[in-house]
Parts: sequence; structure tokens; C-alpha cells
Amino acid sequence: MKVYLDNAATTAMDDRVIEAMLPYMRNHYGNPSSVHSHGREVRTAIERARKKVAELLNASPSEICFTSGGTEADNMALLGSIEARGITHAITSPLEHHAVLHTLEICEQKGHIKLSILNVNEKGDLDLEQLEDLLRNNPNSLVSLMQANNEIGNINDIEKIGTLAKEYGAFFHSDTVQTMGHYTHDLSTLPIDALVAGGHKFHGPKGSGFLYLNKEKKIPPFIHGGAQERNMRGGTENVIGIVGIAKALEIAYEDMADHQKHIESLKTRFIEELKDGIPGVEFNGNSADLNKSLYTVLSVSLPPSETNRGMLLFNLDLEGISASGGSACSSGATVGSHVLRALHHSPERDAVRFSFSRFNTMDDVLYTTEKLKSLYAVEEV
Amino acid sequence: MKVYLDNAATTAMDDRVIEAMLPYMRNHYGNPSSVHSHGREVRTAIERARKKVAELLNASPSEICFTSGGTEADNMALLGSIEARGITHAITSPLEHHAVLHTLEICEQKGHIKLSILNVNEKGDLDLEQLEDLLRNNPNSLVSLMQANNEIGNINDIEKIGTLAKEYGAFFHSDTVQTMGHYTHDLSTLPIDALVAGGHKFHGPKGSGFLYLNKEKKIPPFIHGGAQERNMRGGTENVIGIVGIAKALEIAYEDMADHQKHIESLKTRFIEELKDGIPGVEFNGNSADLNKSLYTVLSVSLPPSETNRGMLLFNLDLEGISASGGSACSSGATVGSHVLRALHHSPERDAVRFSFSRFNTMDDVLYTTEKLKSLYAVEEV
Repeated sequence: MKVYLDNAATTAMDDRVIEAMLPYMRNHYGNPSSVHSHGREVRTAIERARKKVAELLNASPSEICFTSGGTEADNMALLGSIEARGITHAITSPLEHHAVLHTLEICEQKGHIKLSILNVNEKGDLDLEQLEDLLRNNPNSLVSLMQANNEIGNINDIEKIGTLAKEYGAFFHSDTVQTMGHYTHDLSTLPIDALVAGGHKFHGPKGSGFLYLNKEKKIPPFIHGGAQERNMRGGTENVIGIVGIAKALEIAYEDMADHQKHIESLKTRFIEELKDGIPGVEFNGNSADLNKSLYTVLSVSLPPSETNRGMLLFNLDLEGISASGGSACSSGATVGSHVLRALHHSPERDAVRFSFSRFNTMDDVLYTTEKLKSLYAVEEV
Repeated sequence: MKVYLDNAATTAMDDRVIEAMLPYMRNHYGNPSSVHSHGREVRTAIERARKKVAELLNASPSEICFTSGGTEADNMALLGSIEARGITHAITSPLEHHAVLHTLEICEQKGHIKLSILNVNEKGDLDLEQLEDLLRNNPNSLVSLMQANNEIGNINDIEKIGTLAKEYGAFFHSDTVQTMGHYTHDLSTLPIDALVAGGHKFHGPKGSGFLYLNKEKKIPPFIHGGAQERNMRGGTENVIGIVGIAKALEIAYEDMADHQKHIESLKTRFIEELKDGIPGVEFNGNSADLNKSLYTVLSVSLPPSETNRGMLLFNLDLEGISASGGSACSSGATVGSHVLRALHHSPERDAVRFSFSRFNTMDDVLYTTEKLKSLYAVEEV
């Protein structure tokens, strides 16, 4: 049996998304910047996709800039706002994705900004009083705090953070890669300047993404060389990626409540099975609290075990189960998860992130928890 | 009848490219950075694609960095080399694509470099003596000169330019978007530090591209946030784009000589028909010289005509013929072609670029030249 429980890394494409993309592979191949009929039909598809995304998020089409993914969109928002808006101070947390952390660290190394890293407790909760102090003492700051953490699933209250940022005149960017397509976003009321999406996190294509940028907050081009994406990103558009991400978001919004309910039932059962079957099991961050974490992510901390130590993901892989140690983006690196380090996760224990999608079944959960229980059955001494 | 003669803007995808991409839409969806089986099979596809591209170009796989297209690759090479290599002077020409010109102009505006623009004659030939003077007087320069112009098709001798650049210790980048997949490149002998490709110019997918960067010339990351593409470009890879561009290049190399012969016959006939049928027709740059221009591009300068002035592309479009005024990338802009301006093309005359691919037929050529001849039949006074 093959079980895929690494949906926070990437998801399988929805067949309807593939169907929406195929005509732009097989038939409609014009360059959207061309004024002739071959070009116009493709331009129409791109602008229809932009309008659809904007409608779903309650934004204006001019506020949606298609990118090659969430990481590029994060880079664009951060580098662009720092360059264009006279920002000299940024606030973030140690739990951010490297797309945010590394980008801000580079800006600090180059002397463009001073960087403040918020304190977090062992659950990964942000110190919002410290945030307010920093905002009070540093006019014209940039705040970059993710809506939900990709490794432990913790959800931050971006409405509250955005309200604070607005009160102190700060630019607020949020890495929403893990929530887009899984939660609704109403940008007509949410106090936020920039958020991002990566299509492959909600059954769209890899290589697709977008940046939402509030229309009053202009930034310079990220890629120079053409008038595409309102001069912000030169280069011929990834038409199939754009058509695909819009379709994926449309599908996500159609059945979001049902999918949430289904996936929550999987996560709840997963937690119960482990609590019952593995003495000493723990859950990282707020991962086991359905009100404070992504319904799609469960980060498990396994008790110390001679036979599994450092081998757990490998042992699961042998059983056909795909899960992740930290984020996929850094799993090639040997340094371990910076998120779990920030939470002082014991190096004696193995941590695994299981992440779910609407394509998972209860059988996936039962098979996986059964295997985990066997792996952690009390060892003969 | 529908005739597509705008292949320098973008090409139709080859069915074999689509077939190569489909399994990575339908079946193999893992994140290539994941270490489990779902991830590994996709990582294998990416590295196989990189190896294939490297083999075809006689480069090392570590020298190929996949991007979202040629424009991004140009930006990456130029911004990265200027930042990392202490470059304070760049040399380019007024005929470059905006991906190069705008990027270098921005660097100049920011005070990072001094920018020298080569003189060109009315045919668009570069002044290589001036290039050598500039190199002699400006140690540690960057030279960015395209292998072939996208609007008029002029081919520059990049072997000669690269040899000069090497002699004076300059970094040499060439925008090879129009030649990649249409001409062979042997990077084991060509004296070049960086060149680029956009997959959609040779029947691959839009949103795919790569940068070749000589392994001894390191540059910093263009997108921060992950170890992908050897730390040069963070973000989950566009797997289908990567598989697609490699397949497209493989196909291009298989039958390149035959395709060149076929397309040259189309271009030759096109020129003959116009010369015979439209008194006063001219050809921009070296466009009509098969030895000095892309076999895929013909830039036509039509005699002054009351009925067609400013309406020629529209009139062709009405007949089902897709062609281009300048490049597609700037065709949305109303400023006209910077390339034709640099060549002092008369504003009294209309210019059209016809660009061919292996999917075009002699019927396409005859239909189009017939329509052009009708449009330019001597007007009744």
C-alpha cells in the first residue's frame, strides 16, 4: 500500500485542473502579449484567471500578480517593499519559512534593514506584546509573519497582527502558502498589504503562484524585461500555470467546508490512534489543537527509540508511507528543522510531519498509525 | 485559413513534449526535495532533464540552472554577476531584448555600473572595434550581447565576441533565447560565461527556461528560500516545465538540420514572392541574408501605403495571419520597436516580423505573401 501524507510539501493535481490546462498545451499557444488572434485568446485566459482569483479573495484583479510560486512571491513582496517603501526595520519570527527568513537575513547582511526576531514559547506561540513594542519603537517597519506554519501547523491570528501593523503604519506581509485554498481569505476586510500562494499546495501545478499586493502599495519590478504582470514581472507568462492555479483555487473554494470536515476527521482519528497506541507520544507546537492549527498538518514527536532514531522516515518509506521530517524545502539539507530547534524539540526524539489532503482516506490513517504503533511497540530488552 | 507566423514570439508545443509532461501532471506529483519514494521519482526526472540539457550543450549538469524562462535567466545572470563579481562597467547594444537592456539600465540608475551602449550601423551590425576599445579601457567589464536579435534576426558572432571578452577578462553573457533549439551550442569550446533559454521558443512549455553558468563563475541566489537549483533559486521546481524544456531541446537536436533546411526554403520563397510582388519592399537588418540572420525570422519593411499605414498587422489578422510588429513582449506598449528605431527605420513604412517554425508549410507562405501582395497592390489614385 502507498500512502501519501506529505501534502504540506505538495499535493497531487486535481484532474479538473489538468483538464483546464490541457487546451493551453494542445491548442491555444499564442503569446499573450501578441495582439493577433492567437495571442488574444491566451490573454483572455490569463485575465479570466486573474479575475477569478481576485473574486474568490475579494480583491481587485490589478492586485493579483502571477509568479512562479510562493517563494518567488515572498521574495518579490519583501525585497520590493524594502526597496520602494523606505523600510529600514523588519520584524519576523524564527518559525518562518526560509523564503521569508533567508530573504530578510540577506537584506540585513546587506545593511538595508535591521531585523528583529520575535520570541516564541515552546508551543511556537508568538509574543505579540513584543511585536507591539517593536512597532512602537520602530516607525515604518515591515512585519512578515506567516498565517500558518508549514512544519507544526500553528495558526497565527493575522487579523490581529494586521490590525496592529496598520495601527503603527507598518507594511504587513504574510506567507499564506499553507492556508491558501484551505481557508477563505476576504481581502476586502483583512488588514494586510501582501500575501502569497503556491498552486501546488492545493492541487494545482508546481511552478505556479501569485502575490496579492494591496493596490496602494506599489513595488518595483522583480524581473525586468517586459510589461507583463503590470510591469512587475517581465517574461512570457506561464500560461498553463496561471490557468491551473486559478482553477485549483476555484475548486478549493467550492467544497472547502466539506473537505475541512473530512480532513479534520482524519487528523482527529490519527491523534487518537497515536495517543492510545504509543505511550509517550507528543505533538509539536499547537499541532494537536484543532482550533489553533492547520487541519491539514499534524507534527508528531515520538518517544526515544533505539530502532527508529534517525531512521523513522526511512522505516515509514519502506512501508510505502510518505511523510516528512520538517519541510520538504530543507529536507535535502542535513541541518534539521529550524522550526523544531526554535521550539527546543529534544534531539532524543524523532519528529514527523504528517499532512493530509482531501484525497486521503481513513484507510490511509489506519494503515499509517498501525505501522507507527508497530515501529514503536515496546522493545525487548 | 489560419496561419501562424509569429514563432519568434512563441511556438506551438510539440505533442511529444506534452506526452513527456503528462505523467508529471497525472501520476508523479511528489516534491522533488522530499526524500521519500514520491519525491525521489520526481527528483530523478529533474536531474535526468538537467543531464540531458547538459549533454546536448556539452556542459556539465551543475552548470544548468532551471528558471521560469529566458527573461528570468537573463536577470539572474546579469544582476548576479554584477553583484558577485565586482563588475562596475557593462557593455551592451541598443538592439538587445528588454530583459537585458532594462536590467542593465536599472543597475546603472542604482549606481552599480557604468553602462556603455555599442554603436550599430543601419543594418544592425555591431561595432566590434568599439567593443575592443571599451574592453581595453574598462577592466572587469560585463559584456552582454545576444546571439541573434529577436526582431530583425541579425546573428552576432558570439565566438568572436567571447574570445575578445576572454582576452580582456570580461564576463560574457549572451541572450540566446532565439538561437537555442535552432542552432547547436558546444559549450566545451564556446568562450562564454552565461547563456539562456526559454522553452516556449522551441516547442516547449511557456514558463520554462534555463541559465547556463560556467562552473567557475559563481553568482548569488536570485530567489531566496531553499536549496533548490544548487541554492541559486529557492522554491519548489516547476517539474512539468523542466521535463518539458529538456524534451523540447532533445527533439530540436534530433532533426535540427532537416528543420533548418525546411524553414530556410520557406524564408527564401517568402523573400522571393515579396521582391517579385511588392515594388519597394525592403528587409530590415540582415534579415534577408541567410548567412547573417536567423533562418526563422524575416523582418519586412513595406513601402509607404495610405491604406495599410499603422493597420497592417490588423489587416493581416483579419485574414487569419498572425505576425508581429516588433517583439511580442513589447507589443502591448505603444512606443514602437526600440530595435527598428535604432536602425532608423522610416516611420513612413510599416514593419512586420514574420517568424517561422518547423510546423509551417509552403502553403502558409504562399497564402501570406498573396495577401500581402493584395494589400500592397498599387492603389487607385
